[in-house]
Amino acid sequence: MHPILSQLGLSHPIIQAGMAGGPTTPELVAAVCNAGGMGTLGAGYLRPDEILQAVGKIRVYTTRPFAVNLFVEANPHVEDSVIHRMQNHLNRIRQTLGIPVQEGNLNPSTISFSAQFEAVLKAKPAVLSTTFGVLDQESMHRLKESGIIIIGTATTVAEAILLEESGVDAVVAQGVEAGGHRGTFLGNFRTSQIGTFTLVPQVCDHVTCPVIAAGGIMDGRGIAASFALGAIAVQMGTAFLTTIEAGTRQVYREAILESRDESTVLTKSFSGKFARGLDNQWIRTFEETIPPEDVPAYPVQHYLTLDIRQAASSRKDTQMMSMWAGQGSGMARVCKVSELMEALIVQYELVRKGL
Amino acid sequence: MHPILSQLGLSHPIIQAGMAGGPTTPELVAAVCNAGGMGTLGAGYLRPDEILQAVGKIRVYTTRPFAVNLFVEANPHVEDSVIHRMQNHLNRIRQTLGIPVQEGNLNPSTISFSAQFEAVLKAKPAVLSTTFGVLDQESMHRLKESGIIIIGTATTVAEAILLEESGVDAVVAQGVEAGGHRGTFLGNFRTSQIGTFTLVPQVCDHVTCPVIAAGGIMDGRGIAASFALGAIAVQMGTAFLTTIEAGTRQVYREAILESRDESTVLTKSFSGKFARGLDNQWIRTFEETIPPEDVPAYPVQHYLTLDIRQAASSRKDTQMMSMWAGQGSGMARVCKVSELMEALIVQYELVRKGL
Repeated sequence: MHPILSQLGLSHPIIQAGMAGGPTTPELVAAVCNAGGMGTLGAGYLRPDEILQAVGKIRVYTTRPFAVNLFVEANPHVEDSVIHRMQNHLNRIRQTLGIPVQEGNLNPSTISFSAQFEAVLKAKPAVLSTTFGVLDQESMHRLKESGIIIIGTATTVAEAILLEESGVDAVVAQGVEAGGHRGTFLGNFRTSQIGTFTLVPQVCDHVTCPVIAAGGIMDGRGIAASFALGAIAVQMGTAFLTTIEAGTRQVYREAILESRDESTVLTKSFSGKFARGLDNQWIRTFEETIPPEDVPAYPVQHYLTLDIRQAASSRKDTQMMSMWAGQGSGMARVCKVSELMEALIVQYELVRKGL
Repeated sequence: MHPILSQLGLSHPIIQAGMAGGPTTPELVAAVCNAGGMGTLGAGYLRPDEILQAVGKIRVYTTRPFAVNLFVEANPHVEDSVIHRMQNHLNRIRQTLGIPVQEGNLNPSTISFSAQFEAVLKAKPAVLSTTFGVLDQESMHRLKESGIIIIGTATTVAEAILLEESGVDAVVAQGVEAGGHRGTFLGNFRTSQIGTFTLVPQVCDHVTCPVIAAGGIMDGRGIAASFALGAIAVQMGTAFLTTIEAGTRQVYREAILESRDESTVLTKSFSGKFARGLDNQWIRTFEETIPPEDVPAYPVQHYLTLDIRQAASSRKDTQMMSMWAGQGSGMARVCKVSELMEALIVQYELVRKGL
């Protein structure tokens, strides 16, 4: 075990990824912690009061260290004409679903990153993990003063180097296999779709801080492979989506369990940032009708499409929902977190001894 | 060591990939064999007499088993109008390079797959590895009668299953990190860009034949990770391109040595099939001006662009050459094959013991 993991008091070098939007219930986060790993509250879309409430619940269920994940602030300027065109497109979808048409930018001003950040400082989790960028030096200073360990997310070597320079305690190297949003903040989409297999060793060769592997890790084989490539721990998302404790909706769970190696694609259509999810009619329609450059930037598109995704989810319409999943989704299975964690450790030991 | 590797008499479970177009000199193939691995002659673009000549030379340099790689036959129908449009585009490039303009389909009828196949049967290498498809049952039967071991290439689980059903002795699971042509023959480009990290274990879960990992394996870390994921051997291409014995041109070598994690992209522009290579002006110009569906299918586009690529190569114009490389190219180094092989084995042992 790397010193940073011992410092955190982890029994197993397994981090459950901070999947925003519902799956990371306090029950899931706490169950991972109680099984000796580290759970993460995906707080990217939570209001400050929701963050404090969720953290309070986690602390009812566990006394062990856990993480909160935030999306580093993005304030893109999007032209009204771009939003108008997108709303016209989305209103056609809204009409087919029988939900009210919308106009203009629906980005709620009520959730600010700085307010989320203050809530995290107040909640004081053991770890703050961040995605989509680098925190400013004042924020880093305040986290360090509070004794909060900081983990950044990189999808390229250049991003990992910048995160290390900013003072993070560890870097997650997120390969292109990963489900959900690509953490990319410097890289160009054309050239930054780097697989876990080559990203992890190259990041390890270019930073001195500990590296956590993410992207396609589903079982003990993936954990052993991550360590072989130089990682000190793994971060797993999709594998936890089908655990009993996760807040994953039933239709989404079923879609993951029915998926296979060729089931996922990267798409900007739901949020304005590339993310990997199960392929469906929504994604294909966007690809056929809307050039990627016409999709408003994150998080504008996320809020523009939110009502439609919620309506689709309510009617269990998997063809119009965003169902984030990694390329290993075909290896997911239904079980309790404690069972998954035990299976991971047992299989990892078997694989390690078999090498 | 898996029985198939012992049967082949390999000392190390390392296969040098059959990179067509020049890099796999008889010296390279033999040096890999003499170091205890298995070299592969990339014979996809060779005439039957050239195959026999190269195999003859390999046998001068080594008595150990080696492989020949062929591209399974493709005879796409391409409309004259598509070729005409592409030639118009290419002629503008030819004019800037000062080479003769061309008209029509330049696909030479002199190289037929069946003639290549007969040459391989005559040359009788220990192994025939194939890319881009499944051999017909008569061909499989003849190979088996000759005692030639057959290795197929898969980029998805479905392709691996089909290859196993066809009777191959082993399957290469080629992840999206791999340099050169994607071996895809069933998969859709949208959904079949599967990383080595998730492809290898999922293929292992769905076939009973031995699985060889390929795509992004550059050092002992990658070898250990491949075994952890369930592979019985690795196939490495890019790592051998910068060895002294490879036929890689000097400017191409230098471009690989200067590359990093974000240097490669997948492109159809050179050959009509998606392949991974170092990004350059040629690829960017195609992306900006020609929709992928307007590129004539493989191998038509390969032969249409051949004169330009050769002219660019002669003038060391790396912006107009195809320089295939995997996502691990930033880890390549200059050395003799024997040094690379020893470093691989030593590092693999260190990684294995450190787990």
